[in-house]
Amino acid sequence: MDTSRWAAAPAPTASLRRRGAVLERAILDAALEQLGTVGWNGLTMEGVAAGAQTGKAAVYRRWPSKEDLVADALQAALPRLEGAPDLGAVREDLLALCRQARAAMFSLPGSALRAVIHECDQSQAGRFHGVIFDGVVEPTIKLLREVITRGIGRGEVRPDAANGYVFDAIPAMMMYRSKMCGSEWSDRDLEEMIDLLMLPLLRPEGA
Amino acid sequence: MDTSRWAAAPAPTASLRRRGAVLERAILDAALEQLGTVGWNGLTMEGVAAGAQTGKAAVYRRWPSKEDLVADALQAALPRLEGAPDLGAVREDLLALCRQARAAMFSLPGSALRAVIHECDQSQAGRFHGVIFDGVVEPTIKLLREVITRGIGRGEVRPDAANGYVFDAIPAMMMYRSKMCGSEWSDRDLEEMIDLLMLPLLRPEGA
Repeated sequence: MDTSRWAAAPAPTASLRRRGAVLERAILDAALEQLGTVGWNGLTMEGVAAGAQTGKAAVYRRWPSKEDLVADALQAALPRLEGAPDLGAVREDLLALCRQARAAMFSLPGSALRAVIHECDQSQAGRFHGVIFDGVVEPTIKLLREVITRGIGRGEVRPDAANGYVFDAIPAMMMYRSKMCGSEWSDRDLEEMIDLLMLPLLRPEGA
Repeated sequence: MDTSRWAAAPAPTASLRRRGAVLERAILDAALEQLGTVGWNGLTMEGVAAGAQTGKAAVYRRWPSKEDLVADALQAALPRLEGAPDLGAVREDLLALCRQARAAMFSLPGSALRAVIHECDQSQAGRFHGVIFDGVVEPTIKLLREVITRGIGRGEVRPDAANGYVFDAIPAMMMYRSKMCGSEWSDRDLEEMIDLLMLPLLRPEGA
């Protein structure tokens, strides 16, 4: 996996003592680079420190463990979701939102995240599931909430649809089919989910 | 975990050469017993053979690997779902079905299965996710299908609700909230899911 384009800036010369955010950025980039070359199993704190042209202590001071470091590096690299789509109809808004969530999960960092979950111990996997939740699922639900609330305002969505089970339906279904069927959620799969599951769930009675 | 009550029959005397199903039953019981005492990590094919009062060869002949043996043992021990509930209304039928699925996942073998998934390598975990799918999820979906079809016949459910996204909604939501929130699906949680997600999804338009 080529992660060279993740690096934000070239490594500074050894004589420059970096501080704060610049050093942290270099360490996180080195972690992503190591993930891309040697993977979770091959990644070491020493290797990351060397890659960031700093000492081990600078790494451990900020990230006590390998999973803390890699979790932060991936969280920072995940694509940010754009704002809630507003295309004039809830069907189109939901589709646009699902495409964004899919893009995040199948982005380079999203794929790296899923690879790490596959490689690490079960005791560490929870940390990385947390990165998926904080970095993709929770932002998606927040935007779903906005789209659905706007739909209620437009009379496209029944007023009692603004509840946690409705908001969770899309992330739940996307994760389920991803895990159980290896689904990669094509545009057609997303449309089917919206048309067969979400629209019937959201439309007002008698619509 | 006390798995002594899983044993179907007492171990026969050493002089009796057992064959076929009886020997297999003894081996599977010994595997469950080992899981209960030393867990996935401590379980060995030799230990299982000794517990079944047989030789290693008899075990390996039928189960080439540790995960094949433990997967079969747990699959066989999982409670069977009863038939599709028929309580006169789709809400009650769905609730009864969800309680059965919950009982299977939180049964002794279901909990052992989830513990094994937690302890084993990621390369082995897929095998055990398969046991959950084959042993609990797929039978549940089959019964959901019957309940929903009966509801369509009674006019309680819209005719176009008989599709894969609707059938998957319950397993997807139960697995999602179990994983993301550690939900143990109380009766109240099940009722909320049925009332807030399933009934609006299933009811005919204008109902």
